[in-house]
Amino acid sequence: MTSAERLHDRADEFPDSPYCAAFQATLELLGRRWTAAIMRALFAGPVRFNEMGRLIPGISHRLLTERLAELQQAGLVERREDGATQLYRLSEQGRDLRRIFEAVEAWNRRWLVEDAHARASG
Amino acid sequence: MTSAERLHDRADEFPDSPYCAAFQATLELLGRRWTAAIMRALFAGPVRFNEMGRLIPGISHRLLTERLAELQQAGLVERREDGATQLYRLSEQGRDLRRIFEAVEAWNRRWLVEDAHARASG
Repeated sequence: MTSAERLHDRADEFPDSPYCAAFQATLELLGRRWTAAIMRALFAGPVRFNEMGRLIPGISHRLLTERLAELQQAGLVERREDGATQLYRLSEQGRDLRRIFEAVEAWNRRWLVEDAHARASG
Repeated sequence: MTSAERLHDRADEFPDSPYCAAFQATLELLGRRWTAAIMRALFAGPVRFNEMGRLIPGISHRLLTERLAELQQAGLVERREDGATQLYRLSEQGRDLRRIFEAVEAWNRRWLVEDAHARASG
């Protein structure tokens, strides 16, 4: 199921415009725990399942599998067999999320991280 | 350099870094139901509480109050007395979220809304 289809299914949850529904659906998906870390790993290039676990220390095998399946279902990540393992990479739709990530990170750097540093050293 | 090595160099950005936590916190806040609609109303300028209800048809008084309180607590929205009513406006930090909203909306237009339209007319 693509993210557009999922969104369509959920349209009755959102009384107003498709923009509002889409906005919320996108942020909910990206805001799930570990999803940003997985996406960031994939922005650098295709990653094998077992590498992913090393690149994102702390994530459980179960959660990694679950998040990757969600991202595939949303059409953001593609998987293919690679010998005995699975190779994951971003779809064009997934790669295009980069601008959102950059905008969020720029805002966080400006308003949250610097702030936290200022407080820590203040 | 493989993507894994490139990524390893960036290990401090992963996933227990303040960046990840901040990323998730920001998306969770903005992804709550009605929050985007409220922010969008405020991007246009200060809004009185009772106007807000008209600008965002469908939101309950209780939820509007709750969401505005959350946004105030996060430092994104400021409130002041205005005669018998309350006037809400974005803080500088809140106004600066505009780039994130624009990035999410551009992505949604490209990948979700056009897609949904194509399916609706297909």
